[in-house]
Amino acid sequence: MFQRILIANRGEIALRVIRACRELGIESVAVFSEADRGAHYLKLADEAYCIGNAPASESYLQINRIISAAEIGNVQAIHPGYGFLAENAHFAEVCRSCNIEFIGPPHKAMEELGDKNSARRIAADAKVPTVPGSEGLITDDSSAAELANRIGYPVLIKATAGGGGKGMRVARNDISLKAGLKAAAQEAEKAFSNAGVYIEKYVERPRHVEVQVLADTHGNVVHLWERDCSLQRRHQKLVEESPAPNLPLSVRQEMCKAAVRLVKSAGYTNAGTCEFLVDKDHKFYFIELNARIQVEHPVSEEISGVDLIKEQIRVAAGEHLKLKQRNIKVNGAAVEVRINAEDPDNDFRPSPGRITDLRIPGGGGIRWDSHVHQDYVVGPYYDSMIGKLIVHRDTRADAFATMRRALAEMHVGGIKTTIPLLRRIFDDAAFNDGNVDTTYVERTF
Amino acid sequence: MFQRILIANRGEIALRVIRACRELGIESVAVFSEADRGAHYLKLADEAYCIGNAPASESYLQINRIISAAEIGNVQAIHPGYGFLAENAHFAEVCRSCNIEFIGPPHKAMEELGDKNSARRIAADAKVPTVPGSEGLITDDSSAAELANRIGYPVLIKATAGGGGKGMRVARNDISLKAGLKAAAQEAEKAFSNAGVYIEKYVERPRHVEVQVLADTHGNVVHLWERDCSLQRRHQKLVEESPAPNLPLSVRQEMCKAAVRLVKSAGYTNAGTCEFLVDKDHKFYFIELNARIQVEHPVSEEISGVDLIKEQIRVAAGEHLKLKQRNIKVNGAAVEVRINAEDPDNDFRPSPGRITDLRIPGGGGIRWDSHVHQDYVVGPYYDSMIGKLIVHRDTRADAFATMRRALAEMHVGGIKTTIPLLRRIFDDAAFNDGNVDTTYVERTF
Repeated sequence: MFQRILIANRGEIALRVIRACRELGIESVAVFSEADRGAHYLKLADEAYCIGNAPASESYLQINRIISAAEIGNVQAIHPGYGFLAENAHFAEVCRSCNIEFIGPPHKAMEELGDKNSARRIAADAKVPTVPGSEGLITDDSSAAELANRIGYPVLIKATAGGGGKGMRVARNDISLKAGLKAAAQEAEKAFSNAGVYIEKYVERPRHVEVQVLADTHGNVVHLWERDCSLQRRHQKLVEESPAPNLPLSVRQEMCKAAVRLVKSAGYTNAGTCEFLVDKDHKFYFIELNARIQVEHPVSEEISGVDLIKEQIRVAAGEHLKLKQRNIKVNGAAVEVRINAEDPDNDFRPSPGRITDLRIPGGGGIRWDSHVHQDYVVGPYYDSMIGKLIVHRDTRADAFATMRRALAEMHVGGIKTTIPLLRRIFDDAAFNDGNVDTTYVERTF
Repeated sequence: MFQRILIANRGEIALRVIRACRELGIESVAVFSEADRGAHYLKLADEAYCIGNAPASESYLQINRIISAAEIGNVQAIHPGYGFLAENAHFAEVCRSCNIEFIGPPHKAMEELGDKNSARRIAADAKVPTVPGSEGLITDDSSAAELANRIGYPVLIKATAGGGGKGMRVARNDISLKAGLKAAAQEAEKAFSNAGVYIEKYVERPRHVEVQVLADTHGNVVHLWERDCSLQRRHQKLVEESPAPNLPLSVRQEMCKAAVRLVKSAGYTNAGTCEFLVDKDHKFYFIELNARIQVEHPVSEEISGVDLIKEQIRVAAGEHLKLKQRNIKVNGAAVEVRINAEDPDNDFRPSPGRITDLRIPGGGGIRWDSHVHQDYVVGPYYDSMIGKLIVHRDTRADAFATMRRALAEMHVGGIKTTIPLLRRIFDDAAFNDGNVDTTYVERTF
């Protein structure tokens, strides 16, 4: 097992990994930008190194500086968290070429799954259905328009390096396609340093259901069931839950099996998530494999009792998975909300500032994953998420009742947050009935 | 089901009951003393009434004022929490005579179990072993000395109305017996308005193991397994865990069955706890039944998945227990620590004051039950407990690792707390091995 791990990330996920390391008896080395200097969570790591200025491009995306910190810190492995370099195959390769294990999949699998074309080929080989779309990246507007007309509008434009809704556009005709391709490419270039985009058939009012998988380096692959992440606003997940409501067990099992087949077929290891769209008839289409731990991973941890970060570390160290598929049961129901420092009354613009008052809900069934505290200053540089509130109860109805209670208790003073929207969502009848899709929030709230 | 419940308590347990009410869709009515006026947790109740000045004798122990608040608040039931009037049979009787359900046992059962003599008779009828001791209250020093010599020193002097170590003394000879009787009686009079004390054989270095029971008004009784509360300082529990370590399953099952027999024999309903001493040979002796919800109830909630406060409310409303004994499994291991505003470097004297900085640990497996927040002022009037940190994991070793991590993260600024002692306890080898007894803390730390 590793003695020391560097965490190439910040905020909530950095603290999440620090906590896992402490519980495993592994020393943790944090890195931080000038904007995060002095942050409380850094004190919980065993060491912390500054790697540059506030913009991520000058610190959290600086591979050479992170490798330097890892070498000075004398670590055996790097956990990339989510975002930043987490799905950067080149970073994974550089780590390993420096004899530092990258806690994630093989870079070859990352490259192949990161490339839309080869990902579709892998899915086809594994007999996993995909959404009809472009073979490879879009090279020019006219061939894109030709394709869009062939598969039929509406189509979805997606960044090949994307995630979290960035670099994504819906086009309903040739005009909006042209504008969308340009905007998506620009956004993708800025966010991921990769302007590549592709298009696919836009499934109308789909549900977004994803399967958590875990694979060791000895060929063992398990799934930890699914998460329903249909509650989204502009492709940003707001609420995630497991199990997926109103989805027959047979469909859930089929999806989970498909995810395992795909992971095996790709030679993928470590934690990953197979994302699917599910249409009105419960037909599912594989859209992408997220080759990282995801923000919403606690939902799966709660229902399965498995600590995914610890498993990531164990698997990266070469251990055999101790988990057996038959023992991974769905225990109760779990739901997570993301609390973002955004102003719901002002088009959800980021709302940086000092948290002057913070009341975190407590009591049974509640988990709070966050690096913030009263007097923490939310800066303007990074993702606006300030914490994740997770509830685990025996039933979905009980979990929702506890979440409503928790959201009623929760208070964040000094900045605007998405809490008021989340309260309205949990009072919404269709959501409580499990009858929503990825367009529901924008159509309703 | 009740529509409105009054909570005749304050602080942590008041908030605990408010939370349960919210999740059940029941309105809650809080009461508060002048010292608690403006406390944040009161805002989470639907209504709140002032019932007098800071000393509990002028507010939280004022039956007439609480009944008035209940009548003004138009409630159907009163939850007494723990401490204050929770085990006052007269209060239970007054509530019911006013057509307000007391969320607790029948007052007759409370009286009988509260009386040492009849409690021992009930235990004998139920074939539950007890510690040898006095038949009834001590009336004079000389007959007490005669009895103590007959059963053999050391003996334990206990308040008949007691709990939480108040009014309790060990005597090892006639001289310390006389002094102890006087001191215990005075302390009991002050704490419980009842100076009655009794004596019993003092079991040397026992473990304190208690069984959580739950009984409806239709004759159904279940247990929720045991809690080991051996880690005590001056009879105040510091750490509670379930399951009890190093105790054979057969012994645990026997204790749990004994507790159920005793509860049935007593005609007891609602939640209760049968406390046992366990000696070196794993022989157990019933010492008392606590006719209330206990501070450490979350430990049993975590391992069983049962919400005890909700069950208390349901049972008090006349519902049948839905729980079946065969379905109540011990799931993993749970441990709770009490965080007290006390100064470990100054003989654990209360350390009231403003909490200037508060960092609550989060993440997987952690539950925090508390009414305090940053800027909360801990007053000098009540119990020094400011919160309970509970960890639930798959195994005892994992739970302890998470607790160590959580205690390392936890920071309470502005006042002194027991956190440093708790950190040392969780680093202690004997405690980690489960080899401690009720005298361990004082002998070791």
